[in-house]
Amino acid sequence: MNISNRITDLFGIKHPVIGAGMVWASGWRLASAVSNCGGLGLIGAGSMKPELLKEHIQKCRAASLNSFGVNIPLLRGDAEELIRTCIDEGVKIVFTSAGSPAKFINLFKDNGITVVHVVANVKQGLKAESAGCSAVVGEGVEAGGHNGADEITTFCLIPQLADKLSIPVIAAGGIADGRGIMAALALGAEGVQIGTAFAATAESSASGIYKEKICAAEDTGTDLIFKKIGLVRMIKNRLSGEAIKLEAEGAGTETLKELLGSKRERMGIFEGNFDEGMMEAGQGAGLVKEIMSVEKLFAKFINEFDAARSKAINY
Amino acid sequence: MNISNRITDLFGIKHPVIGAGMVWASGWRLASAVSNCGGLGLIGAGSMKPELLKEHIQKCRAASLNSFGVNIPLLRGDAEELIRTCIDEGVKIVFTSAGSPAKFINLFKDNGITVVHVVANVKQGLKAESAGCSAVVGEGVEAGGHNGADEITTFCLIPQLADKLSIPVIAAGGIADGRGIMAALALGAEGVQIGTAFAATAESSASGIYKEKICAAEDTGTDLIFKKIGLVRMIKNRLSGEAIKLEAEGAGTETLKELLGSKRERMGIFEGNFDEGMMEAGQGAGLVKEIMSVEKLFAKFINEFDAARSKAINY
Repeated sequence: MNISNRITDLFGIKHPVIGAGMVWASGWRLASAVSNCGGLGLIGAGSMKPELLKEHIQKCRAASLNSFGVNIPLLRGDAEELIRTCIDEGVKIVFTSAGSPAKFINLFKDNGITVVHVVANVKQGLKAESAGCSAVVGEGVEAGGHNGADEITTFCLIPQLADKLSIPVIAAGGIADGRGIMAALALGAEGVQIGTAFAATAESSASGIYKEKICAAEDTGTDLIFKKIGLVRMIKNRLSGEAIKLEAEGAGTETLKELLGSKRERMGIFEGNFDEGMMEAGQGAGLVKEIMSVEKLFAKFINEFDAARSKAINY
Repeated sequence: MNISNRITDLFGIKHPVIGAGMVWASGWRLASAVSNCGGLGLIGAGSMKPELLKEHIQKCRAASLNSFGVNIPLLRGDAEELIRTCIDEGVKIVFTSAGSPAKFINLFKDNGITVVHVVANVKQGLKAESAGCSAVVGEGVEAGGHNGADEITTFCLIPQLADKLSIPVIAAGGIADGRGIMAALALGAEGVQIGTAFAATAESSASGIYKEKICAAEDTGTDLIFKKIGLVRMIKNRLSGEAIKLEAEGAGTETLKELLGSKRERMGIFEGNFDEGMMEAGQGAGLVKEIMSVEKLFAKFINEFDAARSKAINY
């Protein structure tokens, strides 16, 4: 791959490939495996209480000498507690999502933490930059899990962020192989954040059934639902079909919240309950065909990227 | 740009860049200008009666010695008449959309016409290939105008088509500059079809007001509406806002068809009626900032592409 840019410099990593910090999938095993391959592994604190996060940080550090980070969804009531845990444990990189990083930026900076915020449009990107973030993740609507309401795709979001922001842009959404990494860089990104493909690796803490469903998904295998109560992309199942039906009928937020219920992500991703759970995944699932180790996946990314680059040189 | 591949060979063109055949925008002036720059210009027959199409074909041929083609939406009642017009006028390249090319494939082949079909998922791509098409346009949901119901993005659609099809893939949707061309090729496309950026050129037959609205659009400037009666992406306006409101309330197809009414494309694109018309445009509109000649736009594409390629070589 052999890339040196602001993102590899910022995190002190060999390859500008970040393993997304996904709920119920990105524990210390996945994060440390990504970091050991020369990428940046992220622990997904979204599904952890502070005590569990502390354990994962400690285990991650024991398993890898390389940089790693933590993803914290700021809309969580106990976001500050999670941040304090990161500070106490000496974490130096935090990716924030779902909320505004401005409120916590001094706390991060005072503790020498590099902050990267996940954004879904240019306005959010500019806000993150002026708040003091060191980079943004620009996440297109093809991404799995929670999505921005504007439904901007990776192909359109990344070049517009790159044009408007001074800080580097990391592309996310739909990137599941080395061709996608090459394409994201061509669009102006300096790094990529990959979710679904890593969620299906051996080191992911997600259920085996969830991983198999990702591998079985084809190009049309995901649904984007819950526009009125917070967009989510997931593997098509009974629940997403029901949501689409209700939405077409004009169901209100109360009805949809009732359908959503609680703990659907845990049920789907962690417990492997296909019919009742939410198996969050991106449209890139169609490109994921096999559960493999992070090491093997990383080698695949590098081979595919190098092949795409050689091809570009010789078009 | 300096690319030689199956798409440049298939059409006998210098650059694998196709100017989309857009209703009310792609007349002979735009098509011949694209062809004169070394791309493949397409006349958009979707807004033409056979007699007018004949005139545009003749004028296009008079204005350019290079290859050009015609886009025909097959769902039109008089599609066969439009095809007969192409045959009578010696057109050698036809792009078909909205419908199945299988019904007409013998008619095309018997008359030495190369057929390319526009698809929005892998299944449609495989069908087009087995019907005998020479290539497909894979169109992501970021594209302007009519869209596939599966809402697959360019970033996810192109590599999956490239993996599953033997015939070459042309990428469409969200490509509005040379970075996008480079990214599309990295994803596995061998050519690109560009709509919105060409719709805003001086040679486009669209209204000046329409072109200005494209240039003014930002990343969040389009809406995707009418899921129940045929998805359309357009510049946000009063009409699209009304459609979104009605859809959120669960409006049925009758209500939506009543809102859609008729001649909205003509009103918006050709007559420049912003509030009442449908100004169809892709999310790439956010990357289009200035009305310019096709020649200048093409030079810009080539410069941006070459810069992206140089950068890739030296990452």
